[in-house]
Amino acid sequence: MARLVMKFGGTSVANIERIKNVAQHVKREVDAGHQVAVVVSAMSGKTNELVGWCKDASRLYDNREYDTVVASGEQVTSGLLAIALQDIGYKARSWQGWQIPILTSDAHGSARIAGIDGKNLDEGFAHGEVAVISGFQGVHEATGRITTLGRGGSDTSAVAIAAAIKAERCDIYTDVDGVYTTDPRIVPKARRLDKVAFEEMLEMASLGAKVLQVRSVELAMVHNVRTYVRSSFDDPANPQAGTLICDEEEIVEQQIVTGIAYSKDEAQITLRRVADKPGVAAAIFVPLADANINVDMIIQVVSDDTTTTDITFTVPTADFERARAILESSRDKIAYQSLQGATDVVKVSAIGIGMRSHAGVAAKAFKALAEKGINIRAITTSEIKFSVLIDAAYTELAVRTLHSLYGLDRT
Amino acid sequence: MARLVMKFGGTSVANIERIKNVAQHVKREVDAGHQVAVVVSAMSGKTNELVGWCKDASRLYDNREYDTVVASGEQVTSGLLAIALQDIGYKARSWQGWQIPILTSDAHGSARIAGIDGKNLDEGFAHGEVAVISGFQGVHEATGRITTLGRGGSDTSAVAIAAAIKAERCDIYTDVDGVYTTDPRIVPKARRLDKVAFEEMLEMASLGAKVLQVRSVELAMVHNVRTYVRSSFDDPANPQAGTLICDEEEIVEQQIVTGIAYSKDEAQITLRRVADKPGVAAAIFVPLADANINVDMIIQVVSDDTTTTDITFTVPTADFERARAILESSRDKIAYQSLQGATDVVKVSAIGIGMRSHAGVAAKAFKALAEKGINIRAITTSEIKFSVLIDAAYTELAVRTLHSLYGLDRT
Repeated sequence: MARLVMKFGGTSVANIERIKNVAQHVKREVDAGHQVAVVVSAMSGKTNELVGWCKDASRLYDNREYDTVVASGEQVTSGLLAIALQDIGYKARSWQGWQIPILTSDAHGSARIAGIDGKNLDEGFAHGEVAVISGFQGVHEATGRITTLGRGGSDTSAVAIAAAIKAERCDIYTDVDGVYTTDPRIVPKARRLDKVAFEEMLEMASLGAKVLQVRSVELAMVHNVRTYVRSSFDDPANPQAGTLICDEEEIVEQQIVTGIAYSKDEAQITLRRVADKPGVAAAIFVPLADANINVDMIIQVVSDDTTTTDITFTVPTADFERARAILESSRDKIAYQSLQGATDVVKVSAIGIGMRSHAGVAAKAFKALAEKGINIRAITTSEIKFSVLIDAAYTELAVRTLHSLYGLDRT
Repeated sequence: MARLVMKFGGTSVANIERIKNVAQHVKREVDAGHQVAVVVSAMSGKTNELVGWCKDASRLYDNREYDTVVASGEQVTSGLLAIALQDIGYKARSWQGWQIPILTSDAHGSARIAGIDGKNLDEGFAHGEVAVISGFQGVHEATGRITTLGRGGSDTSAVAIAAAIKAERCDIYTDVDGVYTTDPRIVPKARRLDKVAFEEMLEMASLGAKVLQVRSVELAMVHNVRTYVRSSFDDPANPQAGTLICDEEEIVEQQIVTGIAYSKDEAQITLRRVADKPGVAAAIFVPLADANINVDMIIQVVSDDTTTTDITFTVPTADFERARAILESSRDKIAYQSLQGATDVVKVSAIGIGMRSHAGVAAKAFKALAEKGINIRAITTSEIKFSVLIDAAYTELAVRTLHSLYGLDRT
């Protein structure tokens, strides 16, 4: 009897009717002989409402209390789905993070799972019960306080539970029917992928694809949890398989490029004529790191006068003003001539495990983009992806160009 | 340093603005040097919404899951109030029933408090923290599942916590400014009482006054918790004292009658010409008791033929149809001629500890009601109250008549 984790996000449990639809999906898997743990998010809109209340109560709200407030959203859904399952004749009980328990760090608001004790769940399975688990939440052992894993954390809950109960697979039900070669709203010819390797999915999630939380993919990779992304809006009696995220060895026909991602959450900062001397990079980047600002792409270009250099890098848009303020306050120490910033930029990336064994993949892209008159502001590459920073106005054109270039268009 | 419990109901925490107002009430008491435990209900409307969802998910919902769902309402409020208190510079933390813990029976949906361990709260007080406690909820020790105390249970939580932490008093903040001699909507001349004895309040709550939950008054009486009913809409800087519910020894000038209550939640059933033989009362009332139907007033009148008798009694309106069905199904066994029912009846009661030492209090009422042409369908009396069952159309007239008769009108 195989075990299965099924995870349903906010839009899939937005109201009672949809919760009853979720119960039908669960019914199918139980009828097929599976022991099922269901992980649920809050009804869509609920978490935002709860977060809004916390902000209204205090601009500087306590993250411990924030966690107590927002975790209530998942608590409601887990109870309601257990009721809906019982209503159609299946044994079910709800589990909160502290009841299982799902132990986490005490980093309230973005806690990390430290361990899951599967004993209580095992006992429920032995009694033929479906376990309906509140995603997104856990408990810190020493303080006994409710924690949450950060937005989208229910995906991480699902994968972690799958690992803890040794599930055969983890099905992430969402409002899309799988992982696509790129955003179908931009490229109508985008194709749904049958399989994606963990590492590719990790890059795609990191680089802008919103279908899964990055940490859930990391966890799936570490524990080798075969994870499907599939639609909760399929007919429960006859659903599509969706996209399997799995070890690359399972993927026989590997494309060179698997997908094109883009992220608008980038801002560019250029420091002109920075003195080209040892320690200058530290003077720039240590204060930013201290302020918890993630620096992504970094390019250093020697200026024409050869004694100074131009340094360009990107930060998340939300941190742009903070980063600028920090750099301006240490202007004397860094000794730069001017600071230029741009928020109307976008990072477009191509991802594919095939890049490991194929040279010149990125160069081909640079040429194609240049032919379309798209100026590349910065480039980063890694073993299985490359990214270019371009003007935001060219986002769609660049994505479509690369999508065609690597033969991803649906025929 | 005296300890204090402050309880705020749903309308007092209906939105963030009101929660901030509650924080001002708490601030006043902390500034006065008290160690404060605040007990909060769900934001008004929330519990009904959650209950509605449970009903929509299944007509026969599991009470254990119902408790999980509805307890989330208080969880939200406790977190938000803790944030609001921190926002104005006070240390505070929220406590859920399972965190304290408040141990209860496993009668989900209407659990009884079995014990409260005050150790965690003591520790918080030692750190100068305000304890913000979710009312209405607890946890069953053996199963670790969330329980709720039934509607209005937050009053009971507050009194039980006051007893557990040995609070000097328990202030129940509500949308009225105290306990009145009767419903001011019916009798504009109703007066607010400065003090009410526990036993009087218990009768008043049982007989229809909605200001406090019956079980909270029982608990206050047993543990001698001095309990104030007062308004959360008073100016937090300068509030009124409200009504003190206390031991009768604290009440110097005891009225004969303290208050007039009424309850529309009564239905009358009369069985005509029941065979007047041993065991007939059991034949009627045992099946009703087995069905968990509370029978209140019972009157037996011998019929004119002397071999049969008419039996009249009342049941809660909600149980009327069920009671009728049970009696009709055992018609042969009971052997009655006909069953007559009425739901347009009301029970009007006068309550006062002074009745113990004064004879003829009720008789005076029967005469006054007769003079107004009000027919009395049934009567019950106890040491400190009497109740009459009358046609609902006469409710206001009867309440006003008794209120004047016993000198309760404000002058």
